[in-house]
Amino acid sequence: MTDKPSKLKARLPRGLVDRGPADLASTRAMLEKIRAVYELYGFDPVETPAIEYTDALGKFLPDQDRPNEGVFSFQDDDEQWMSLRYDLTAPLARYVAENFDALPKPYRSYREGYVFRNEKPGPGRYRQFMQFDADTVGSASMAADAEICMMAADTMEALGIPRGSYVVKVNNRKVLDGMMDAANIASEKRLTVLRAIDKADKFSLNEVKKLLGEGRKDESGDFTKGAGLDERQSEIVLSLLKTDAAASAKAPLNETGKAGFDELAQIRDLVRASGYDDDRIRIDPSVVRGLEYYTGPVYEVELLLETKDEKGRPVRFGSVGGGGRYDGLVSRFRGEPVPATGFSIGVSRLAAALALVNKSDAQPSFGPVVVTVFDPDRIADYQTMVAELRAAGIRAELYLGSGKFNPQMKYADKRNAPCVVIQGSDEKNDASGEQVVVKDLVLGAELSKLEKGRDEYLQKQADAQRKVPRDQLVKTVQDILARHGVKTRMA
Amino acid sequence: MTDKPSKLKARLPRGLVDRGPADLASTRAMLEKIRAVYELYGFDPVETPAIEYTDALGKFLPDQDRPNEGVFSFQDDDEQWMSLRYDLTAPLARYVAENFDALPKPYRSYREGYVFRNEKPGPGRYRQFMQFDADTVGSASMAADAEICMMAADTMEALGIPRGSYVVKVNNRKVLDGMMDAANIASEKRLTVLRAIDKADKFSLNEVKKLLGEGRKDESGDFTKGAGLDERQSEIVLSLLKTDAAASAKAPLNETGKAGFDELAQIRDLVRASGYDDDRIRIDPSVVRGLEYYTGPVYEVELLLETKDEKGRPVRFGSVGGGGRYDGLVSRFRGEPVPATGFSIGVSRLAAALALVNKSDAQPSFGPVVVTVFDPDRIADYQTMVAELRAAGIRAELYLGSGKFNPQMKYADKRNAPCVVIQGSDEKNDASGEQVVVKDLVLGAELSKLEKGRDEYLQKQADAQRKVPRDQLVKTVQDILARHGVKTRMA
Repeated sequence: MTDKPSKLKARLPRGLVDRGPADLASTRAMLEKIRAVYELYGFDPVETPAIEYTDALGKFLPDQDRPNEGVFSFQDDDEQWMSLRYDLTAPLARYVAENFDALPKPYRSYREGYVFRNEKPGPGRYRQFMQFDADTVGSASMAADAEICMMAADTMEALGIPRGSYVVKVNNRKVLDGMMDAANIASEKRLTVLRAIDKADKFSLNEVKKLLGEGRKDESGDFTKGAGLDERQSEIVLSLLKTDAAASAKAPLNETGKAGFDELAQIRDLVRASGYDDDRIRIDPSVVRGLEYYTGPVYEVELLLETKDEKGRPVRFGSVGGGGRYDGLVSRFRGEPVPATGFSIGVSRLAAALALVNKSDAQPSFGPVVVTVFDPDRIADYQTMVAELRAAGIRAELYLGSGKFNPQMKYADKRNAPCVVIQGSDEKNDASGEQVVVKDLVLGAELSKLEKGRDEYLQKQADAQRKVPRDQLVKTVQDILARHGVKTRMA
Repeated sequence: MTDKPSKLKARLPRGLVDRGPADLASTRAMLEKIRAVYELYGFDPVETPAIEYTDALGKFLPDQDRPNEGVFSFQDDDEQWMSLRYDLTAPLARYVAENFDALPKPYRSYREGYVFRNEKPGPGRYRQFMQFDADTVGSASMAADAEICMMAADTMEALGIPRGSYVVKVNNRKVLDGMMDAANIASEKRLTVLRAIDKADKFSLNEVKKLLGEGRKDESGDFTKGAGLDERQSEIVLSLLKTDAAASAKAPLNETGKAGFDELAQIRDLVRASGYDDDRIRIDPSVVRGLEYYTGPVYEVELLLETKDEKGRPVRFGSVGGGGRYDGLVSRFRGEPVPATGFSIGVSRLAAALALVNKSDAQPSFGPVVVTVFDPDRIADYQTMVAELRAAGIRAELYLGSGKFNPQMKYADKRNAPCVVIQGSDEKNDASGEQVVVKDLVLGAELSKLEKGRDEYLQKQADAQRKVPRDQLVKTVQDILARHGVKTRMA
């Protein structure tokens, strides 16, 4: 092959990936299971397009000529800015506001789809990835939040993650806000404080205290600047992390903080009444959740499965989804309060976790049966064999390339075919009537590991390649597939 | 509600749509059926992202500052232009070129996904819509084209479109090109000639001849300018349309045209050998297909179902998918010939057709069972009832709003609930033990149409609202669901 200078380079932009059969099949099976749980809970599917007006997404900054900060944006013919959605919540808010009168209220809905981030990609960070969301819009009741937490727990179990290997952790932004009010923490320090709290599941309280104060040096010597709280402020924050947050707080709290604790107590009572104990849904004062629009309860599903970090050390798998109450997002369009709460699963991350869980029982998966082409002039005959196999519900294909016999066998190997069908002129014109050869590639591979001439070898050799009358083709292939546990659809 | 001046307007950009539960459920069922056929044929799923480099899509015009003609484009950080894919073929070509050595060759694959067109939307024309494609890359054999035509026919039948209500029509670009060469038709006239040929399934040959010549005035008096062919040229084109294109051509043909006829004959022989007759797959010289990149056979699936046009006149449903051979598309990246053929289904259009076919057996679909909240202080009790119903596989939800009894019943109606569950303090504290009321909303609706006091009325009234002991809640709901044929999952 010679490179022509004008030749295009085939490449994907950074942070985007192609996805193959195994990935797609496991994701599809996962989505079906999530969908079944959400349907059972009375949630209805709704889907919005990938493109929205930028102002509807709430990311448009009027002092920027092109609003491309974090999102992919482009201008319509009429100069209006449009963007690819960066999550599924902002488009849902637009949808509910636009169809408000027609929808039942409260409105439970779910959707899965790709979202797009115009960010620097990194390991495990993509610019296009799938989310699976469920939201209840129009209910201020903590029962709505409690329900979503229970649904998240049920979803994990429906996916085969055993009880005890996941936990839904619940907190409340009002508790965090009330605590920071009470401690007189300046607003510019609050994000750093929240980040320090977010580390409480990884670090000891002593290390968290460093992040709340001057800063912390890690093992490698890297220094993270702290929030700069004084001793009294740090103690208030830490007292919250030491407390069972749903019990009466030991930390001094204002009205906001008290309301937050009261909401958490309500959620706890509701889930307990339905039989969800601490091993499934738990109040955890260290849950923060990054998004700015949360206004009340926030929740997070954490997997307690152990995995390995890039240095081979065991680490907990961590969060695979989360959400919270966002009472202000629909109101932007409506001019009246519209309470809402919702939950988002990171589909790729959860799929990676399930691959860990299901590692042990992964089945070998076979490709289609390959009908080889011995005599190119008789391709219609081979095509007819393929049609017969397919009519019997057997996944089958004709070799469509121009290679001779060896390339065809290599092709069948690459396709992971359980068997191949061969018919040369000898078989076609057999004195006893038309014949066909079916070669079992699985037994064939086993043969190559055995000592030649021994009984086992001879038996397998006989089984591995059978010459049968043409009208027994389908039956013979079915037998071989059954031998290896390949399921076929009924014809 | 008062409109604040700062309030955002909730609206979608033109040409984009939201999709609700019925649409999503029927599309999902349809995609599953298509997928099963494609898998049976040995095609493997592969998915590429929505974003590609613009040059990989082949739409980039170097003299344009912003390549937004027909596609949505934006610049990456490093100034490279990226675009949303406008079909699934160009990204597949990029994928195959990028992973050439790892893929089996020939490579059969399928994928479904949204594509984006930056065009003026119109009735039935959207700027985001779904396609479902299957392609075979790396085979120059007409058996590859024949296979895709048979797969298209099988797909229509798997979707419930009866034989005789669809046809796969096959033509060859080489025949069209060869015929236009033979007739000495100037290149600038050829697109108009192809458009005239494309009308041959709607107009008589006399009307087509007008479009080949000076032009044609329709019933409303609108004039369509013709291709300006002379009498001899028109006759050559028309002779092609009169001929069985797979038979020896009566039109004078050059080598290209002859090669095209030969390819059509091969396809016909292959599909006939597998039992696909003229009622399923047919050579049709009027098939043109719009895309410029086709190099050989082109094919189209036409539905022969009758539907109504906007004026209520019966019309044939028309094309729901099509494709052809595009031997040049992967070669752009590889610098060596890579033959390929593929087929694309317009998912929304096919879904609309299936809605026509399945109109008669559409089942009424019920929403979830609604558990009402009579006493807000006892919401945990009601939540527990919901959890019990769900545990029995019954789709159920708690009313999460703040309305009194009437709004709750209206909510249940809007949700199309088969029944509601009610428990006030009378039922809770019943002398015979805790009770619960289950109200059958379907029977309730029938009651309202009957004359009060008659036997039938009294019987239905008794059935429509039952007070039962609390521990018979699940059983009672199951009975009502069975009465109305609502399927529930097993617990």
